[in-house]
Amino acid sequence: MARVSQQHLDARRRQILDGAARCFARNGFHATSMQDVLREVDLSAGAVYRYFSGKEELIGAIVTEVLDTVREAFEEAVRLSPPDPPDVLVGEVMGRVLGGERVRGTAAGKDAPRLIIQVWTETLRNESLSELMRTGYETVRVAWVKVVEAYQAAGLMRDDIPAEHVARTMIATAQGFAAQQALFGEAPVEVLQNGLRGLMSMGVQKPG
Amino acid sequence: MARVSQQHLDARRRQILDGAARCFARNGFHATSMQDVLREVDLSAGAVYRYFSGKEELIGAIVTEVLDTVREAFEEAVRLSPPDPPDVLVGEVMGRVLGGERVRGTAAGKDAPRLIIQVWTETLRNESLSELMRTGYETVRVAWVKVVEAYQAAGLMRDDIPAEHVARTMIATAQGFAAQQALFGEAPVEVLQNGLRGLMSMGVQKPG
Repeated sequence: MARVSQQHLDARRRQILDGAARCFARNGFHATSMQDVLREVDLSAGAVYRYFSGKEELIGAIVTEVLDTVREAFEEAVRLSPPDPPDVLVGEVMGRVLGGERVRGTAAGKDAPRLIIQVWTETLRNESLSELMRTGYETVRVAWVKVVEAYQAAGLMRDDIPAEHVARTMIATAQGFAAQQALFGEAPVEVLQNGLRGLMSMGVQKPG
Repeated sequence: MARVSQQHLDARRRQILDGAARCFARNGFHATSMQDVLREVDLSAGAVYRYFSGKEELIGAIVTEVLDTVREAFEEAVRLSPPDPPDVLVGEVMGRVLGGERVRGTAAGKDAPRLIIQVWTETLRNESLSELMRTGYETVRVAWVKVVEAYQAAGLMRDDIPAEHVARTMIATAQGFAAQQALFGEAPVEVLQNGLRGLMSMGVQKPG
């Protein structure tokens, strides 16, 4: 019997994950059955169960990929020093998540927002996925606090506000925009970037 | 047989909804059974099924309440003219949703963020709830666009940016902050307000 190459195994695994992600993005984790996944990827049960023991393992793999992709997008965006302004950074995060960068198969692309909000609810009832989410968020938070501190040190932003609050708020704009994409359909990333530019133009300084 | 007063019927219905909301906030719509709800509200199946035909009807009632509460919070916050600045408005929305105002029993309070992100995913697979969500969002969007136009007319914000983009971004900050509350635990609304103040202090004007 011919040995199956690692490359073939990886491609098959990828094919299953991509199909499952399409099903989950459409119907959610709970309303999707393994039958749905088998139909979507057009493989036999035997072929699929060789890679994943069942739906819970598939969900775990996809949640992990989505969380990794989002975390990397937030981390990559703030690698440059001095950092770009908030509208540029948040635009870069959304661009990476929504698809330019196909870092991983399932997690980037136009299905990403629908998957992301489902990942959020899934972590509420799964302790180990929740832990993964918190760890990733913590890494992102630390990196984005540094960016805000750089704005403040350069005199670009009032410095009497905790950098962490601004970092959380910048992250929240990306999260909220992802939710809007999932709920109300695609919109160009410039919508969010313009919105931030509008807020940033207000020039409200510290009182007194 | 004594007639049961309308007040009693309403209170009983409220009791069931509140208990169901606690279950849903904890475990999500799909992992919660009617048995869980019966245990939580400490009523017999007969008593509960007199009010709700089953879990789908309970989910529908709670999703509707959450959407109404959130829509009202966004609408109420922008009733004043001239409008308060973005940090004040968004703080008021979050304050109303998170609990000060117990507009309705289930939908406001510290469980609200966990319910909200579950409502989002639920609308992905339910056409009529999705329609309700879109209609509510449209109302909010129109009201918040007017606020941004007022900022621009008063010279408080650069006016070469579509007001809708800024409105969507302000709404996104509240949505993203709600997601953070659900995923990472409670945080004071001032975190978001301070974050917005930081962004608003940057004073970046139109190029050229």
